[in-house]
Formats: sequence, structure tokens, C-alpha cells
Amino acid sequence: MKTAVILIQCDDRPGIVARISDFIYRNSGNMISADQYSSDPKGGRFFMRVAFYFDEKRWPVEKLEKGFDAIADEIEAGYSLHYTDRPLRMGVLVSKADHCLYDILYRYKSGQIHVEIPFVVSNHPDLRDLAESHGIQFYHLPVSPDTKKEQQQQLLELSRETTDFLVLARYMQILDRSFLDGYAKDVINIHHSFLPSFKGAYPYRRAYERGVKVIGATAHFVTEDLDEGPIIEQIVEKVTHRDSEADLKQKGQNLENRALAGAIGAYAEHRILRDGLRTIVFHS
Amino acid sequence: MKTAVILIQCDDRPGIVARISDFIYRNSGNMISADQYSSDPKGGRFFMRVAFYFDEKRWPVEKLEKGFDAIADEIEAGYSLHYTDRPLRMGVLVSKADHCLYDILYRYKSGQIHVEIPFVVSNHPDLRDLAESHGIQFYHLPVSPDTKKEQQQQLLELSRETTDFLVLARYMQILDRSFLDGYAKDVINIHHSFLPSFKGAYPYRRAYERGVKVIGATAHFVTEDLDEGPIIEQIVEKVTHRDSEADLKQKGQNLENRALAGAIGAYAEHRILRDGLRTIVFHS
Amino acid sequence: MKTAVILIQCDDRPGIVARISDFIYRNSGNMISADQYSSDPKGGRFFMRVAFYFDEKRWPVEKLEKGFDAIADEIEAGYSLHYTDRPLRMGVLVSKADHCLYDILYRYKSGQIHVEIPFVVSNHPDLRDLAESHGIQFYHLPVSPDTKKEQQQQLLELSRETTDFLVLARYMQILDRSFLDGYAKDVINIHHSFLPSFKGAYPYRRAYERGVKVIGATAHFVTEDLDEGPIIEQIVEKVTHRDSEADLKQKGQNLENRALAGAIGAYAEHRILRDGLRTIVFHS
Amino acid sequence: MKTAVILIQCDDRPGIVARISDFIYRNSGNMISADQYSSDPKGGRFFMRVAFYFDEKRWPVEKLEKGFDAIADEIEAGYSLHYTDRPLRMGVLVSKADHCLYDILYRYKSGQIHVEIPFVVSNHPDLRDLAESHGIQFYHLPVSPDTKKEQQQQLLELSRETTDFLVLARYMQILDRSFLDGYAKDVINIHHSFLPSFKGAYPYRRAYERGVKVIGATAHFVTEDLDEGPIIEQIVEKVTHRDSEADLKQKGQNLENRALAGAIGAYAEHRILRDGLRTIVFHS
Repeated sequence: MKTAVILIQCDDRPGIVARISDFIYRNSGNMISADQYSSDPKGGRFFMRVAFYFDEKRWPVEKLEKGFDAIADEIEAGYSLHYTDRPLRMGVLVSKADHCLYDILYRYKSGQIHVEIPFVVSNHPDLRDLAESHGIQFYHLPVSPDTKKEQQQQLLELSRETTDFLVLARYMQILDRSFLDGYAKDVINIHHSFLPSFKGAYPYRRAYERGVKVIGATAHFVTEDLDEGPIIEQIVEKVTHRDSEADLKQKGQNLENRALAGAIGAYAEHRILRDGLRTIVFHS
Repeated sequence: MKTAVILIQCDDRPGIVARISDFIYRNSGNMISADQYSSDPKGGRFFMRVAFYFDEKRWPVEKLEKGFDAIADEIEAGYSLHYTDRPLRMGVLVSKADHCLYDILYRYKSGQIHVEIPFVVSNHPDLRDLAESHGIQFYHLPVSPDTKKEQQQQLLELSRETTDFLVLARYMQILDRSFLDGYAKDVINIHHSFLPSFKGAYPYRRAYERGVKVIGATAHFVTEDLDEGPIIEQIVEKVTHRDSEADLKQKGQNLENRALAGAIGAYAEHRILRDGLRTIVFHS
Repeated sequence: MKTAVILIQCDDRPGIVARISDFIYRNSGNMISADQYSSDPKGGRFFMRVAFYFDEKRWPVEKLEKGFDAIADEIEAGYSLHYTDRPLRMGVLVSKADHCLYDILYRYKSGQIHVEIPFVVSNHPDLRDLAESHGIQFYHLPVSPDTKKEQQQQLLELSRETTDFLVLARYMQILDRSFLDGYAKDVINIHHSFLPSFKGAYPYRRAYERGVKVIGATAHFVTEDLDEGPIIEQIVEKVTHRDSEADLKQKGQNLENRALAGAIGAYAEHRILRDGLRTIVFHS
Repeated sequence: MKTAVILIQCDDRPGIVARISDFIYRNSGNMISADQYSSDPKGGRFFMRVAFYFDEKRWPVEKLEKGFDAIADEIEAGYSLHYTDRPLRMGVLVSKADHCLYDILYRYKSGQIHVEIPFVVSNHPDLRDLAESHGIQFYHLPVSPDTKKEQQQQLLELSRETTDFLVLARYMQILDRSFLDGYAKDVINIHHSFLPSFKGAYPYRRAYERGVKVIGATAHFVTEDLDEGPIIEQIVEKVTHRDSEADLKQKGQNLENRALAGAIGAYAEHRILRDGLRTIVFHS
């Protein structure tokens, strides 16, 4: 038995659920779970995630995929299809801060997040040991204003064929439009504030100065507009006047880990759909 | 256009979603939302909630109900069907504490919870003004060990025909088995601890003495076993050594309000299914 | 026995706690609780709250106050002194939305917040019944662009002598600098977002469009800069893609109630000190 | 300059704060922070934590300690004194589960928790590599019903002189009374439920079966009564019907890490006082 997950989106119209569930049923597939969301049942956008298992002998993958192509054409839907025996390949970009990488590697190693990690890339050499001690290939791609273009080209060559998505685990560099266009797959970033508060640099310092009573971290898709991409996960925590800027930073690191782990987990399980600036994240 | 919600449960088997969604679609219904849960896709129990709207002229209610009866027979399912233009009738039982009733009446009045409230009953006269100032009928049914049987009989007569479910909003009396059997509909209670901790009396005092760092409140269905019924909603909050027993009580009252409001809201929107000691509560 | 609370702030220097605790002790006062905070023990700003009870016969109020005046001079401190048998007088300003007022009046009535409420003022007549049914005087002071100046003057006359602080419980008008200068006491506002996100109008709509996964409410002191005043309390809650703008609004109302109640409670118990844009809020 | 932390408890009486703050001040010490708590200002128990820095040349340690001895005698107080340049030595006991140890070692390595770790002990060999790769000595002390007594004796010899406290980081063995008496210092355990719910074995399974909507983890002091020791920290998280027993376990591991890290941090910073079954945990 093989398990597949299909993510679909299209304009809402009657009969979509019936069409898809019937298609799976008639081909001897069995639905494990189905989630759907309509931004407006009377003329909005429709989003669906279906997990199902099936017998490859009775329903070969090529036939299955052809069938979904036909349905997608019919209902003018975009869709993606994933097989759970092929985990996504996640490239990880870091700078010097180690907390996110450390957390990711533990969750990877202990099976909490179901991905492959072809490599860790950094513009600094500091985290080589951490990556390699977990058996992960590490590349040091230093960057300076003069070499940024070139470095991003290297990064593109490294990741285009070998990864399904990238994670910026406190990678303190901005990816250019040309990189994003060239890569053309999803890139997830962790930002150390509860966006849209404190966009840009030094969010903990600014949070401290503003005297907020809640801090947070935000995992979001990277778009050309810095810190403006669709939000996937936000984790927050109460703080008080006693928390110094250093305290906020330390508490925030734990929030960053949790928000990023949540986003990676959801992405790896094909639970995220994008709707402009919004995301549909079906529960685990 | 009329909107219906159907709650179904049966043993899991292939094709249930296809069967139901197809039935609705062929009768020109349009699904607004569908939620499903299977305790185990390979042989567990299947639970589903579908909201859909339909044109009564094209699909008369009698025909619709007959159709679902037939499907339920076919897949050996239990189901209940609700029309959103007929809000549930909720009887409220209280004693002397007013916070839950005050909160319920505000949410009722402001349209946050979509129910009708035929009456408030209390074994004390204290909350008459509160109920009546919101235009709700109030009955005072005093109770003593000697008159308990009789009082429960009065309560049964009062509520059997006029309510769809009862809420014990800090009603400090235990309902007997004979009442529960006679009423034969759902009764929701709010317990002032995070069950299963501190079952029984004086949970705040015992929480204080045990030195817990978290308190909570639990809304659950009433069964014969006191404080052992299926849990619907739990709300918790951190406390510290500085919180006296009185502080716990006051903080706890807000948790009680929120847990009970969550449970009433879910029940009123037909989002709860029971599975033995567990509840399936589909998100709003 | 009488209970007093003193709030002090000054530049940090050795011996302040010794000085104050010794002064209270020598005058036969007994400290109930003491909280202190220093932004930097080596040369920062020092904040202290001390609650103590004393025997008025042995330590008359005039002598006590003279004593603290002398200490404050000596250590160049600002301070305020409060007696718990004189609850603060809180003027409440509202517009049409009733949830905050409803919540405040319940907490007032049930003794959760220890204030007197001399009046509720609104620029609309809608909430008169709500106020009056709780025995609170209601004033309708309508406002238009032409009459704003005059209305604020009326408000000032109404509140200057009769209140110790004002609460804007979803009062949808901006108070002018001239009002704030004339009133010269604290004004607390509730803003329906987790500031500094979504300053200004329509925060729930903008939160919906931005696709945030957390919403919040912020109680803050009013300053001339709209939504830029020192934050007292922030309450947040997770939301999902399923929450419509209307859902955010409704969930948000409960957060507004809780944040505002927290701020009022802390203010009424003299637990808040201001430090520029930051607030020191000692725990209850 | 040297920094000390003193933890004091005694029966409440007037003048304690004045006595101690004055003593520090007169000896040229400067208070960094002071926290106090009285279970009842009129005749309860008084708890205080004071951090202060001082010049060893002007106030030698021996003189300082003699001074506090005298005060403690005078006010009949128990106290402990700690110097922040001497971090506590924490022995760690584990079995096979690695998540707590992994988390502790990261926080140790990154300076989040200020302790020394003389060793990790386990009754299984599995976590040797993890400990040693962080430069920590690992001892494998296997245990069986027959050898338990002997193993606890080995453990006692290993830890009595070399550690200031022990942490059971998912050590699945019960420590006997004789060990606890012999060790005579604090032992902190992490229990994988929100005590007092689900004391004993298999808490996640029982939480699943009971259908709770909140799970949690509890860090507590070990006493002879299993799972009945004073609670230090509790962390909770909402769950739904969709969470399988395996999901609860995985979510719970993160809660265990956070609760245990919170307790270790508080202990290492001398912020915990014990009061029978309750703990006073002063904020960081």
C-alpha cells in the first residue's frame, strides 16, 4: 500500500468534494483524512488536502496522476501530489547562530520532522561541526557585498536540483529576486518577532524599547518583500519589565525554534496551501 | 436557501465521504464545510460533520431526511440533522454563583452563542433579577435532601419538552440517574479544575494546597459518574505562589466562563460528536 | 489598622530599600509586600512598591506623609501614596460597542476591580441602559467635528474633580492634547491589536488580510501620539485561516476585555509605574 | 566585585526586610534585586531572596557569613548563601529517552543554564555518545531488581561529594528512601503529565483514553512519595481529538524539555524556596 497526499485549490463550485472523493473511491483508494476550506462558499476560493492510501498494482501511479490531471483540468484547479515514502529534501541555510540548526537537527534525527537534509550552507564556517556531527554535508559559502551575486549563483547551483524547499534557519542574508526566481520553489524563513511588528533588523532591541508585554517569532514564506511573505506559524510568550534585551533574545530563541519546527513539520507533511498573502495550514 | 448540518458516525469503510458528498451534490446541495475524523483509517470509527445549503423547493426537507435515513441504514451510521434557522433550546441551571450566568447572558444577548434560552432554574432565588433583566424566565426550585427526588421530577417536567440540552452553569447539585435517564438529552457541566485533577469538591483549595503552577476549568458532558464524563473543552492559566486560594478562585471564574462558553458555542453549532469517553470537537 | 501603598522611583543608589523599610519599621508599620526593580543596579533607574499596614493612632497620616516627603527629597525620588480604604475613582468613556463596558461593570459589581465609577460618558446614547441598570450615572456628550472642542471641554469639567483616572473602553474618539494637558492624570485605552502591529483603524481587517496566526489586544496609557503610549497589558490568542474577519473581531473582543481588566486591576491596586515608553507592572 | 544570593525563610515579623537590607547596606553591599513573599503578613511564613554585590576586600566572605549567621539566629531563620562565581554542580540521571538530555546539553553549552555537569549516569548505555560528544563524563550503572540496592549505593558514592543537586531527566527508576536520605540534597524530576493528573506510569496513554483537551509536564522535587513532591514548574498545551497517543507523546516531550529547563534555570539561579508541599519560585 502506498500513501499519497494531494493539495488542490480552485474557485469554489458545487461538487468538488464529491468529484475527488468519488474518483479515489472508484479507483480503490481509501481516504485517510480530508480537509477542506472555502474562503466563501458562495463564490470564493476552495482549498483541499486529501491523504489516501492505495494499491499500486490496482492503481498504478501513472494512471493515478493522469486521472488527477484530468480532474484538475475539468475544475480548473492547481494541485500538487506527494507520496509519503518520498520525504521532501530540505536545504538549510544558516549564519552563526546555532539554536535553530541544533533544534532542527534534533527533530530530524529523532524522526519528528520527516525530511531529508542534503546539506547545510552557511556564509560562516562556525556551524560545520554541528552539521557534520549529525552526518549532514556542510558548505561554507562566504559572502561580501562584492561577491553576493556570485555566492547566490553558487547557492542556486547547489540547491536547484537537490532540494524541494529551503529553510533560512537564522540566515542573516537577504536572497535576491534573481535567486528566488531561479530557485522557483518555496523558501521558509524564521523572523524573530511577531510580524508585522518589528519588521527588519534588531527586533528584540526594538521590542524592549517599545516595552511590549508579548514577544514572538514568525515563520513565513520568503518573497521579494522582506518580512512581508505569507505567515505560516507564529508563537508568542508573555514577558515583563524584568526581561532585559538579553532575556528577550534568549526567550525568543526558543520561540524561533518552535515556530520554525511547526512550519517545517507542516510543510513536510504537505499541510500548507498559499492564498496570496494568506496561508491555509491544515492541522496535523 | 436553507442551511443544514449533519453529524454522522459509523465504522470506517471506504467510500463514505464519496457517498455523502455525492448525495448532497446530486440533490443540488452545496457543501459549506466538511470535517471528518477517523480514529483509525484501517478499521476504526469514522466521524463526519457536513454543513451545506440547499433550495427547499428543489429538495424538500422530508425528501432530504428520507435520503439520509437510507444512507445511514446502508452504512450503519448514527446521525443527527440540524437546520441552522432553528437554534437549539438551552435550559440553564444555576445555584448562587453568578459569573457563569452573567457571561452566558452577555454572549447570548450579543449573538455570540446561537441558542434560545427558555428558562433559568436555580435552587436559590438569588439570580432571579439577573435572568429576568435579560428577559429570561426564572424558576426557583429549592432542594433539600428530603425533596431532591421531587425537585428533579419538577425539573424534568420543566425541561423535557422545552429544551434540547441543559447547561449546569455552576449548579452545585448532582443530577440523579433517574433524571438523566428521563431527560435523555445532553447535559453539559462546568467543573472548576483541569480534570482529572481535583475531581469532586473544593478544587481551588486543593489546587492551592497541592501547590500547582497551572489551574484550569473543564466543560464536560454529564454522566452518572461524577466528573468523569467526556471532556469538551479545557482552559488553563499559569499561577504562582503569590496566588492565594481566593486569587485562584477569581482567576478560575474567568476560565470557567471561557471553557463553558467554548463548549456551548461548539454544541450550539453542532460541532461535537461523542466517542465513548472522548469527544470529537470540530473547529469553528 | 490602615493599609497604604507607596510607589517610588528614583535613580538607583545603595541603601534605598534599607532607608524605606527601616523608616516604616521604626514607625511601627509592617510591610505586607515589597517589590522593586532596577533597570540597571549600577546606575540605572530604581522603582519600588511597598504595601504596609500601620496604626493611625501611633503613626498619624500627616506625620507619615511628611516623613515620606523628607525621604523623597533626600533620595531625589518621585512618589505617590495611596490608602486602600479610598478606592480610585474611574471615569469610563465609551461609544457604541458594549462588550468592554459590560465586562467592566460585572467585575466592578462582583468586586474583582476595586474602584468607584462616578460616571460613564458616551458620544452615543446606546449604552445608557447598561450603565444605569448597574446604578452608574450616564452622560451623553455627542460630538461632531464642529463641536469636538466644546465636547472635550465638557468632558474635562465633568472628570477633572471627580475622577482619579479615565478608561477609554472602546471610545472611538481621539482626545486632544489640550484635554490631556488639562486633565493631567492617567488615561488608559484599549487597542484592538497587539501593538505595535496594526496601529490605527480597522486592526482586525488588516490582521485578516495580513494572514496573521495570532491576534491580540493592548491596554496602554494614552499619550499625544496615537497608539504609541506605554503598554500595560497585552493578551493574545492563536487564530487560523478558518477565522473570518468577523471571527477575529469576536475573539478579539474577549481579548480586549481581558487586557483592559488586567490593566484596570493593576492600576487600581497601584501596581504600575511609568518609565518613559515602558511600564513597570508589579505582579498581583 | 563579587555577587551573592541569599535565600531566607522564617516566621513573618515586622522589620525583617529592614534588618537585612540595612545589614547589606552598612557593609557596603549593594542590592541588585530583592524578592519577598509572605504567606500571611499577620503571622505567616516569610520568604526572601536578595541578590547583592560587594567588595570582598571591604567585606570578606567569612565576615559576611558570620554576619548572616547572627541575623539568622536572631530572627530564627533558615538560610542559604550562594556566590554566582561558583555555579552549582548538577548530576544528570537518564535512561534511554534522549530528548531531555539533548535539550539540557544544548542549554548548558549555550550558556542558558549556569551549572556544571560533573556526569551523566544511566542504567542503559544508549546515551553515552550524546554525553561524551558534549565533553561530559558518562557512567553506565545498570540496574535490576536484584542489584538495585547496590546500584543506588554506587550512585550515592558517585554523587554525594561531586554534585549540589541531581536532575532525573527521564530516569525511569525510583530512588529509594535510603538513597534520598543519604544524598540529603535536592533532586528534581520531570513527570510527563500535569500533576496531580495521571500520576504513575503511562500518563500519555491515560490522557489519550480520558480524552483530555490539555496535556502538560511537571518538574517537581523528588520526595519519598512518588509524583507527590513539591511542584516547581508546569507547562501545558492544548490538544484535540486528532492527536493520537503518539502525538501526545511527541508534543509532550517538548513540554517536558521546557518544564525541566525552567526548573533547572530557577534552581541554578537560586530562585526556589520550599514551603512544605508548595514552592516559592521568584521570577527571573
